Amino acid sequence: MTGELMAAEMGEQPEVLRRLLSRRAEIKSSLGSRLPDDVRGVVLVARGSSDHAAIYGRYAIEVASGLPVTLAAPSLVTLYRAEVDYQGFLAVAISQSGETPEIVSVLRCLSELGAFGVAITNRADSPLAREAGVVLELGAGDERAVPATKTFTAQLAMLGMMAEALGSPPWRPNDWASVPEAVESALADPAPAREVADEIGDALGTICVGRGFLFPIALEAALKLKETSSILAEGYSAADLRHGPIAVIEEDFPVLLFAASGPTQADVESLADTLDERGARVFVIGDVARADIPVSGTLPEALAVIPAAVRAQQLAFWLARHRGLDPDHPSGLTKVTRTGERSA
Amino acid sequence: MTGELMAAEMGEQPEVLRRLLSRRAEIKSSLGSRLPDDVRGVVLVARGSSDHAAIYGRYAIEVASGLPVTLAAPSLVTLYRAEVDYQGFLAVAISQSGETPEIVSVLRCLSELGAFGVAITNRADSPLAREAGVVLELGAGDERAVPATKTFTAQLAMLGMMAEALGSPPWRPNDWASVPEAVESALADPAPAREVADEIGDALGTICVGRGFLFPIALEAALKLKETSSILAEGYSAADLRHGPIAVIEEDFPVLLFAASGPTQADVESLADTLDERGARVFVIGDVARADIPVSGTLPEALAVIPAAVRAQQLAFWLARHRGLDPDHPSGLTKVTRTGERSA
Repeated sequence: MTGELMAAEMGEQPEVLRRLLSRRAEIKSSLGSRLPDDVRGVVLVARGSSDHAAIYGRYAIEVASGLPVTLAAPSLVTLYRAEVDYQGFLAVAISQSGETPEIVSVLRCLSELGAFGVAITNRADSPLAREAGVVLELGAGDERAVPATKTFTAQLAMLGMMAEALGSPPWRPNDWASVPEAVESALADPAPAREVADEIGDALGTICVGRGFLFPIALEAALKLKETSSILAEGYSAADLRHGPIAVIEEDFPVLLFAASGPTQADVESLADTLDERGARVFVIGDVARADIPVSGTLPEALAVIPAAVRAQQLAFWLARHRGLDPDHPSGLTKVTRTGERSA
Repeated sequence: MTGELMAAEMGEQPEVLRRLLSRRAEIKSSLGSRLPDDVRGVVLVARGSSDHAAIYGRYAIEVASGLPVTLAAPSLVTLYRAEVDYQGFLAVAISQSGETPEIVSVLRCLSELGAFGVAITNRADSPLAREAGVVLELGAGDERAVPATKTFTAQLAMLGMMAEALGSPPWRPNDWASVPEAVESALADPAPAREVADEIGDALGTICVGRGFLFPIALEAALKLKETSSILAEGYSAADLRHGPIAVIEEDFPVLLFAASGPTQADVESLADTLDERGARVFVIGDVARADIPVSGTLPEALAVIPAAVRAQQLAFWLARHRGLDPDHPSGLTKVTRTGERSA
C-alpha cells in the first residue's frame, strides 16, 4: 500500500503526545532552571514544517510571556553577517533531524551574537543538539515518511510547553489531557477528510486559510498538500487573503478554511461568507457549527491546533491517494534538506 | 486601453523616486533628531504589498543597525491582546492609504505598549499618520490602479533611507543616484518582460523565487501576478522552496527566479540548475549572466531590488494583457482593505 509509512506515523500521534505530555513537569522545570533569568526576547529558527511550528510558537510564547518574538531570516546571519545584538535572547532552533546544515549554522551564529541556544529536535545526538545550551527532545521515534506528521504535532506541543515555562498561556493546565484524545477522535474518523479530498479531486490549486493560532496550521496544510499531491496550495491568514490574493478565487475554486471558537471566529466566518458569495467551494475544518471536517470542541483554540493539524495530514494523505500518488515519497524530496553550499 | 492607470503609475516611478531621494538628507536628519535615543528593536506593521516592503525593511534595517527587527502579527495585539513590552521599540507601520483600519489599530496598540510610532504612508492626513510620532510621507501622488506600483517602490526607498538613518547599510551613499536611472532603463525596455509573460501564457500556476533582499520582491511578484492575472503564483525564498514546495514543480512548470550578483547568487544559481534538471521553465530576472529579463548591474543587491520590483510589475501587467484582463481592476479587490470588523 502506498502511504503506509505516513499512515503509521500519523497513527502514532496520540502515543507520542501522551509520552511527551508525561514529561511536562520535567520539561518545565528543566527550562525554568536552565534558561537565563533576564530573557528579553526570543528568536525562532526553522524551515519547512518546523517553520510552521515556529510560527505557532511565536503566537504562544508572545501571548504567554509578553516577550517580543521574532522569526530568524537565516540569510541575515549566514549570508549578510548582520551583527545583531542578541544578548538576553533565547534562540530556539527547531529541526526534526537536527541535521539541516543551515539551521545548525544559524543557531551557531546567533549564539555567537549572544543568544542562549535551545534545540527542539527528534535527535538528541544531532549536530543541532550539540550547538544548544538546552535540548528539548521530541522523543517521537524515527520518522521515515518524507512529510513530517508526528514530529510536527510534537513540535507544537513542545512549543506550547515552552510557552507555559515562560508565562501564562491561553489555556488551563488540565486542557493538555484532552489533546491526545482529540487527536484520537480525528484519527478514528477519517471519512470527512477523505470525502473533502475526493471533492478537491483533480483541482489544480487550493488555498488554505486560518487566522491567529490556526494560521500556521493553514500554512502546514498547504505544504503537506503540495508535498504529497503536487497541488498548487498556498496558505494565508484570513486577513492577508483579502489584501490581494483573493483575486485568484473564482467560481468552484476549493478553499480549506481552518476555524475555531474564540477570538478569530467572527473574522474567519465573515471570510467564509465572502468566499461563498464568490462561488468558491469552501470546506471548513474546526469545532464550529458549519464544519465539514470536525475537530473536537473540548479544547481552547491554542491547543485545538494539534487535532486541526491532524486533519490537515488526513487531507494531504487522502488527496495523494485519490491522485494515485505515494504520500511517503513526494517527488524530488528527501528528509534532510541542504541549502546551496555557500549559505551553510 | 485596459491597464492605463497601472501603466501610467509605473511610468511615474523614476520621477517619484527622484523626488523622494531629493528629500534624503531632510528625512535622515528628521529621523535622527526625532527618534528616541535608546532604540532597542523595531517592529514592522503592514499587509499585502506593504508587508513585502516591510520584509525588505527588516533585512535593510537589521543589516544596517544591528537591531533585532520583527514583523508584527496583527492578531496578537488586536485579537489576543498580547501584552508585549515594546518600550524602546520603533513601531513602523506601512500603508499606502493610511486608512486600513487594522493597521491603524495595531499601531495604536503597539504605541500603548510603549513603542514609538512611525508611519510610512502616501497620505500625511490619514488616520495612520495621526497615530504616529513621526510621519514619513511617500509623496508618490494619488495611486488609482488597485495593484500598488509607485507606492511600493517608494516604500522600498523610504525603508532604505530609514536603514541609513539607523546605521550602516550595505550600499554607498552615491549608489542612490543610479536607482531612478535603473528604473528608467527597465521601463524603457519592456520587451523581455512581455516575452516572458507571453511564454507563461495560460499556465495555471507559477512560483516566484528570490533570496535575501530579493525574497520580498519574489513575494511581491507573486502577489502582483495573482492580483492582475488570477494565476496561482506563490513566492518563496530559494531555501524554503527546497523544503517541500519544490514537489509541485513538474516538467514545463514556469518559475520566475530573481537573482543578483552578491552573497545570494551562488544559492540561487544552484537552485536554477536543480529546477533545470526537473524540466521546469526557468526565467531569470536580474543582473546575472543568464538573465532573461535584465536588471541594471550598476547597483548593489540591496538597492537593485527597486528595478527588480519594476520588472515584476511589468510581468504582471503583460500577463494580464495576454489574458485579456484589466490590470487596473482585479476581481473583487478595492484600494482599502477592511478586515472582519471584530479584528479592527
